[in-house]
Amino acid sequence: MAQAPHYRALFLIADGMGDRPIPELGNKTPLEAAMTPFLDRLAREGECGLMDPVSPGIRVGSDTGHLALLGYDPYQVYTGRGPFEALGIGMEVRGGDIALRCNFSTVDEDWIVTDRRAGRIEQGTQELANVLSGIEIEGVACFFKESVAHRGALVLRGANLSPHITDADPHAEGQKVWESQPVSPEDEAAARTARIVNLFTRESYARLKDHPINRARQEQGLKPANIVLARGAGVAPHLKPFDTLHHTRSAAVVETGLIRGIARFVGMEICDAPGATGGIESDLTSMGKTIVDALQTHDFVLCNVKGPDLCGHDNLPQQKAQCIERIDAMVGMILQQAGKGLYILVTADHSTPCSVGDHSGDPVPLLIWGPDLRGDDTTAYHERACAKGGLGRLRGQDLVPILTQLMNVQEKYGA
Amino acid sequence: MAQAPHYRALFLIADGMGDRPIPELGNKTPLEAAMTPFLDRLAREGECGLMDPVSPGIRVGSDTGHLALLGYDPYQVYTGRGPFEALGIGMEVRGGDIALRCNFSTVDEDWIVTDRRAGRIEQGTQELANVLSGIEIEGVACFFKESVAHRGALVLRGANLSPHITDADPHAEGQKVWESQPVSPEDEAAARTARIVNLFTRESYARLKDHPINRARQEQGLKPANIVLARGAGVAPHLKPFDTLHHTRSAAVVETGLIRGIARFVGMEICDAPGATGGIESDLTSMGKTIVDALQTHDFVLCNVKGPDLCGHDNLPQQKAQCIERIDAMVGMILQQAGKGLYILVTADHSTPCSVGDHSGDPVPLLIWGPDLRGDDTTAYHERACAKGGLGRLRGQDLVPILTQLMNVQEKYGA
Repeated sequence: MAQAPHYRALFLIADGMGDRPIPELGNKTPLEAAMTPFLDRLAREGECGLMDPVSPGIRVGSDTGHLALLGYDPYQVYTGRGPFEALGIGMEVRGGDIALRCNFSTVDEDWIVTDRRAGRIEQGTQELANVLSGIEIEGVACFFKESVAHRGALVLRGANLSPHITDADPHAEGQKVWESQPVSPEDEAAARTARIVNLFTRESYARLKDHPINRARQEQGLKPANIVLARGAGVAPHLKPFDTLHHTRSAAVVETGLIRGIARFVGMEICDAPGATGGIESDLTSMGKTIVDALQTHDFVLCNVKGPDLCGHDNLPQQKAQCIERIDAMVGMILQQAGKGLYILVTADHSTPCSVGDHSGDPVPLLIWGPDLRGDDTTAYHERACAKGGLGRLRGQDLVPILTQLMNVQEKYGA
Repeated sequence: MAQAPHYRALFLIADGMGDRPIPELGNKTPLEAAMTPFLDRLAREGECGLMDPVSPGIRVGSDTGHLALLGYDPYQVYTGRGPFEALGIGMEVRGGDIALRCNFSTVDEDWIVTDRRAGRIEQGTQELANVLSGIEIEGVACFFKESVAHRGALVLRGANLSPHITDADPHAEGQKVWESQPVSPEDEAAARTARIVNLFTRESYARLKDHPINRARQEQGLKPANIVLARGAGVAPHLKPFDTLHHTRSAAVVETGLIRGIARFVGMEICDAPGATGGIESDLTSMGKTIVDALQTHDFVLCNVKGPDLCGHDNLPQQKAQCIERIDAMVGMILQQAGKGLYILVTADHSTPCSVGDHSGDPVPLLIWGPDLRGDDTTAYHERACAKGGLGRLRGQDLVPILTQLMNVQEKYGA
């Protein structure tokens, strides 16, 4: 190679930014309606296109979308929500761990489920979860953590485990708690895992049924959260670390638990931005500063700003446009402070159209800006302009390779 | 089908032609800067697009790139460089052969490696290789051929062989020659292959240590090339012949050993063009004549012109543009002489930007010209114009099917 300058890249994901034309915005999308001078400059100087996180038309989640954007094939590595639910609430999850989604539920003394959500319990679940810590069954460490309301996650760590087991949660009230069973009777690892789940269910009842919080709930006429019922077992994939896969030194400046969990799971260093809440009013100036700092010590920085997605879910197009304007200002600050040799990729992990109120399968806008690019005719950054851009229509898994080949860190495939 | 006229196709690969804007060319790429009246005419009359040889962003080699362009999935058929190194130096390689990269090395009488490259020997390796011919071990034919300098390749042909063996080359001086071993002890084919490699290593020492060339080298104070050390075993894939796969009668007019080897490996007839050297000054008029002739007897002609890639590796943008102008003139000659019913596809196997000096992951320009096409708005053939072409962004493996369906020789997939 004639020269191999030291380049860095910012991979900026405006969560759920893609949208559809909205009448109250004059039939513009929030991104079209927003004033985005810095993003438009990057579009003018760089290259644009459309991107399908997994493949055209597929509605992805934040987990599958981010896996694809980081270069992993979700169809190969994503076996279910369990491990990502656990990651999302800050649990440590390692490749090979079995993870299950759980509910705090209410059962009577015959273990008939009287409320799958324990009266939609809001308070005290952390204290309840505390008494379930440190359980070890047949040499398998069981980690339980509460999530919001009645939800939680269970992680099993040990040898000879399998996710191919049935649920303990009977999925309906008036039913008796199910015995988890191996899907195939001859699957010894699954039989062992099911047995451990059943013992954990029993232990949860033993430790929770007379817990002071449950006694207090019953005194107030509330349903006690007297058992933990698990469902949806999945195995955490053994992923090659991001930096090993892509020859980078990566960091993540992200807001939500799930994205933070995924970033940590693939080995990225997590850089905390004070005031980055994941809400509409998140401190993006703080995020921008944290990104600029991270780019001093890392050559690949992942950033996810959650705001646009929230506005899409809540059908708030004006606020979505404002969120995007604040992201634009953050980009302006980074441009001013981050120095030379920087590539910036701006995209979304999926569209969250306000009219849909959920993730859609529409492609998302994409721009790549930095040194030594061919350029195209795009003069603004939004869905319709990007559809005419020189990058054409790409997939999520293409993005990191495009950046790493520009950065001169990608190994050649072949001779 | 209403009618099935007899069509032919020229698949013209300008090796490494894709590039990035270059300041000394007025921020044009070499292809933009070059005067290419014939290619521009084809672009005007035909259809253009961008093409990723394997997938967007992936930096391919000449081997993986050409495999993909010929319709084979490199992720399925490319197991390593060994077989393609052997093909590249003109060895016969058949599907199932085990091929290894080799060095002429220097060992002392205890088989401690004192120079892995035998003093970077330049002369006499052909004579040394000659005494290693005709070796057969346990019914396995061993073929060895020298390459440039201290390099060579070993091909093992016989039943019950496996590439899953460790190297004989210890990869460091001061180390004893390694015994090749099966990666898994219970893999009998690998155990047999390792044993054969070890016997070949021994035989190479026996035949080389007192060879007159080595005696002469020692008298001159040079390191003797007294052993051949193999590494990087790979198995040559069983590829369906190109003509069987695509229903063509194909020929190849190509320059470099590697591309010639790949074309022969997939069963293409090789047509030699006198004066086609693979260098910048290669005789492209001769290549053009050979192509015109080949198109009289074959309906699919692959052509690879190496010059643009060399200029990219050496950061010679002006010369790269001149190479492209000479390719354009060759196309003009073919247009004049090849007759009717001809499709011409012009693309590159990868980009070799002058600013990078090596293969990059940038997409390459693509044009398809011939009868009965829809056409698009493209009026010139270069990277940025092609990005707006009607073909969109395609992959290497798409190209031959696009040609064969235009040629009316492709079988329907389904009923």
